[in-house]
Amino acid sequence: MVFSTKVFRKIEKIVGKANCSNAKEDLLCYSYDATPTIFFPDAVVFPKNVQDISSILKLANQYEFVVTPRGAGSGMTGGSLPVNGGVVLVMTRLNRILNIDKDNLIAVVEPGVVTGDFGKAVERQGLFYPPDPSSADYSTLGGNAAECAGGPRAVKYGVTRDYVLGLEVVLPTGEIIKTGVQTAKGVVGYDLTRLIVGSEGTLGVITSLTLRLLPLPETVKTITVIFDRIETAAETVSEIIRQGIIPRSIEYMDNASIRCVEDYINSGLPTDAEAILIIDVDGGADEVDRSIKRIQSVCTKSGARYIKTAATSQDAEKIWKARKAVSPALFKYGPDKINEDIVVPRSKIPDMVKKIKALSRETGLTMVSFGHAGDGNIHFNIMLDKQIPEQQTKADHAVDEIFNYTLELGGTLSGEHGVGITKSRYMSKEISPDSIALMRRIKAAFDPAGILNPGKMLV
Amino acid sequence: MVFSTKVFRKIEKIVGKANCSNAKEDLLCYSYDATPTIFFPDAVVFPKNVQDISSILKLANQYEFVVTPRGAGSGMTGGSLPVNGGVVLVMTRLNRILNIDKDNLIAVVEPGVVTGDFGKAVERQGLFYPPDPSSADYSTLGGNAAECAGGPRAVKYGVTRDYVLGLEVVLPTGEIIKTGVQTAKGVVGYDLTRLIVGSEGTLGVITSLTLRLLPLPETVKTITVIFDRIETAAETVSEIIRQGIIPRSIEYMDNASIRCVEDYINSGLPTDAEAILIIDVDGGADEVDRSIKRIQSVCTKSGARYIKTAATSQDAEKIWKARKAVSPALFKYGPDKINEDIVVPRSKIPDMVKKIKALSRETGLTMVSFGHAGDGNIHFNIMLDKQIPEQQTKADHAVDEIFNYTLELGGTLSGEHGVGITKSRYMSKEISPDSIALMRRIKAAFDPAGILNPGKMLV
Repeated sequence: MVFSTKVFRKIEKIVGKANCSNAKEDLLCYSYDATPTIFFPDAVVFPKNVQDISSILKLANQYEFVVTPRGAGSGMTGGSLPVNGGVVLVMTRLNRILNIDKDNLIAVVEPGVVTGDFGKAVERQGLFYPPDPSSADYSTLGGNAAECAGGPRAVKYGVTRDYVLGLEVVLPTGEIIKTGVQTAKGVVGYDLTRLIVGSEGTLGVITSLTLRLLPLPETVKTITVIFDRIETAAETVSEIIRQGIIPRSIEYMDNASIRCVEDYINSGLPTDAEAILIIDVDGGADEVDRSIKRIQSVCTKSGARYIKTAATSQDAEKIWKARKAVSPALFKYGPDKINEDIVVPRSKIPDMVKKIKALSRETGLTMVSFGHAGDGNIHFNIMLDKQIPEQQTKADHAVDEIFNYTLELGGTLSGEHGVGITKSRYMSKEISPDSIALMRRIKAAFDPAGILNPGKMLV
Repeated sequence: MVFSTKVFRKIEKIVGKANCSNAKEDLLCYSYDATPTIFFPDAVVFPKNVQDISSILKLANQYEFVVTPRGAGSGMTGGSLPVNGGVVLVMTRLNRILNIDKDNLIAVVEPGVVTGDFGKAVERQGLFYPPDPSSADYSTLGGNAAECAGGPRAVKYGVTRDYVLGLEVVLPTGEIIKTGVQTAKGVVGYDLTRLIVGSEGTLGVITSLTLRLLPLPETVKTITVIFDRIETAAETVSEIIRQGIIPRSIEYMDNASIRCVEDYINSGLPTDAEAILIIDVDGGADEVDRSIKRIQSVCTKSGARYIKTAATSQDAEKIWKARKAVSPALFKYGPDKINEDIVVPRSKIPDMVKKIKALSRETGLTMVSFGHAGDGNIHFNIMLDKQIPEQQTKADHAVDEIFNYTLELGGTLSGEHGVGITKSRYMSKEISPDSIALMRRIKAAFDPAGILNPGKMLV
C-alpha cells in the first residue's frame, strides 16, 4: 500500500507530534545502518512507552503498512533498514536501566540502553555483563538481543542469548507479552525468549529485557603474541584450548590487518608478522597468573616470535585499540568493503586461512581476516571498488567460495551479524528448504499480516 | 481414532517385528514415568534410525494416531506418558556417542545415551558436561534436552539448554531437519534449537544432539555447613553470591529432609539442625582453596553451627549421597508425594521457607523442602495419603498457595521438571492468554494434525 497522510495523522495522534516525523531530513537520519545501503522510511516514530508501540502495530495491521524496529542502527546486515518503507520505530528513547539487583545477579533494562553504558553501570556495582560486540559504545541492548550480538568474550562467556532471561515484547499484532523468567532457571511453556532473541526484529518489538549478570572478575591480563606464520598462530589457539585453558578472549589479526592498522594509528606492531594473537585472561589474581604462564609456555613451544604480557591496563588498552582499529582502517585498500562473519570449528581456522590466502592470490583483491579466533568466528573482509564490475564479480565469486568452504568445514555463515538483507540470498546454502518452510510458518504464527520487518532473513 | 490392527501391521512393516510390540506386558513397561500415573499405549516402537521415526510420523499423520517420544521415562511431570494411547516411540536404542571432539570442545550423541555415562566418557578425555539432573544415572540426553533438565550445577554452569548447540530433529510431519550449529556461535535463521529444547517432546523427535563441552575443572571440594535456623542458611547463600563467589553448586536440606535421610541411611547428620548447606566449589586448586576460605568466613560470620570441608572425595560423596537420598526417603511421611520444583529469586528463599512452614502448620501435613539454593530452585514436597480426601484437599490448597506466592515473589512454577500433565492446569497462572495462544500457533506450525505428544503443557 501507499503510506498515506491519513495514516501519518493517526500516528501523530498516538505518539504526539513531537514524537514522529515524515520530514525528509528526519527520514534520512533513519535510512541507513552499518551496511552501505540506504532505504527511506515513510515516517519515523519515537515511542515513549510500550502502549505507543502496541497502538502503532495495531494500526499497521489495520492499514497494512510495515514497521521496522531500530536501535542504534549499527547492524552489519541491514536488520533495521526499512527496505519496504513504512514506519521506522526508533527505540532509543526507551533507555532507562530499571533495576540492577546485586543479590539475584539480574538487571532489568529498556531496549534503548547503550550496551557499553550498561556494562559500566553494572561494573560500578562489582558486576559483569559479558557480551561485548565491537559496537558496544553505541549499539543498544535491544538491538544486541534482536541480532544475538556476540563479541570477543564469547569464547569464555557466550553471546547475548546466554544473558537474556526474559523479555517484554509487543507482538506484531499488538499484544504485549512477557516471556521467560526473572530467575536463573525456568521451563514453563515454549522458550519464546530465545526464539525472539536473534530473530532480527521480525517476530516482535522488544520493550524490556531481564538480563543475567556475573560477579566482576577480579583481574584481567592481556598477552600479545606475534607469529611469523599464521598457521602457527591458529594451531596455538587450538593448543591453548586443548590444555583446558579458556581465556576471556583470543583475538587474531592477519598480516594485512596489521599493516593496515600500522598505517592508520602507528601503534608499533611489526608489519612483517603474519599474525598477532591478543589474549585476555580473567579470574582470580593467582589463577590468571598461572594461566598466563601456561599460555606463554604453549606459545613458546609453538615457536612464537615474541610474547608480551601487558604490564599495565594502559598497555593492554593500547593493543586492544589496535585490534579495534582494523575495521575502520581497512578502507586504505579500497573504497568498498564486503564484510562477512563466518564461523568454523576452531581447529579448522588454519584451513580457512589458507583458503582466504589462495582466493586473494587468485582474484588479486585484498582480503583481510581478523576476529575471534577463540571461537572460530572469522571476520573476513574483501576490499574493492564496486564501480569496477570485474572486481565486483571476483568478490562475489570469492564470497561464494568462502561460504561453501565454511559449510564444508562444518561452520556457519554468521556468528554474530545475522542474515538481514545482505545474507538472505545465501541462507539456503546452510538451512534446508524444510527448515526454511518451518521458519516461515513460525513467522506467520507471530505476524499473520507480515507487517513487522518484512524483506529480511526469510525472503 | 481407534488404533487398529491394520495400523500396527504397517508399523511392523516399517521397523520390523522385532522392534515393535502391542503385547500387554510390553505396553505396561512403557505406561509409566516418575509421576505416579499410568497410561497404556496401543503400541511400543523401538526405532533403529531416523528414517524409522520419519516413516512412523508420516504414518501417524495419515492414520491420525498419536505418538509420544520417550527416553528413560524418568520425567517428573508426565512428558513421556501416552495419555491418549497411540504409539510410544522408545528412543533408548539410539544410544551411541558418535563423536567427542577435544579440539573444538563438542560432542555429537544419539538421544538414548544415558547422561551419566556420557559425563564419564567425556571426563575420561579431560572434558566436562555440566548438566547433572538427579536422574543422570538413568535419564537420557534426549529426554534431558526435551525437558531442559537442570541439576545442582546450574547455579554456576546453567542448564541443558546452555549446552545444546544443534539438533537433528524429525518434525511431527515426518521431515528430518538439522537445527543450530556445530560451532560456539551461530545466528542464521530462527533459533529452532532452543525452541525445541524444553518443548517436552511436543514439537519434534530429537534424533541427534551436538553438545558443548568444557575443560574438566582441576579440583572440586565440598563444604558442609549446619545451621540452627533455616533463614540463616538462606541468607548465607545470598551473602556468598554477593561476595562474588559462584560455587559449582549450593544445595540445601531442611530439618524434615535431614531427619528423613537419617532414618533412611543413617549418615550422621544432626537431626536437630534446621538446615544443612552442601557447597561444591570447583576450578584451579589455588582458586578453590581461596574460595573455600572465603565461604567459611561468610558462614562463620552468619552464625553457622558447624562448618566442615570434606577431606577426601569419599567424604564428599558421602554427604552427596545423603542429599540424593532425600527424595526416596520421604515416603516415611506418607504413601503419596506431591513434588514441585518452584524457583524464586535467590534472595526470596527465606520468605518461601517461612511460607512453607506456615502452610505445614496450618494443614498438619508434612512439607519438606530441599534443592538448589544457589539458583532459588526449591524442591517442595507434600507428603500425604491420597486415600484420605481431606488430606488431598488440604494438599491441593497448599500447592495453590505456594504457586501463587512463587509468582508473587517473581518466581516461576518450574525450574527443571517442566509442565507436562501435572502442571498444565496451573500454567495460566504464570503465562498470559496471549502467550498461550501464541504457543498454540507455534505448536500448529510444527504439528498441524496434533499427532505429537498431545495433551501436554498447552491443554
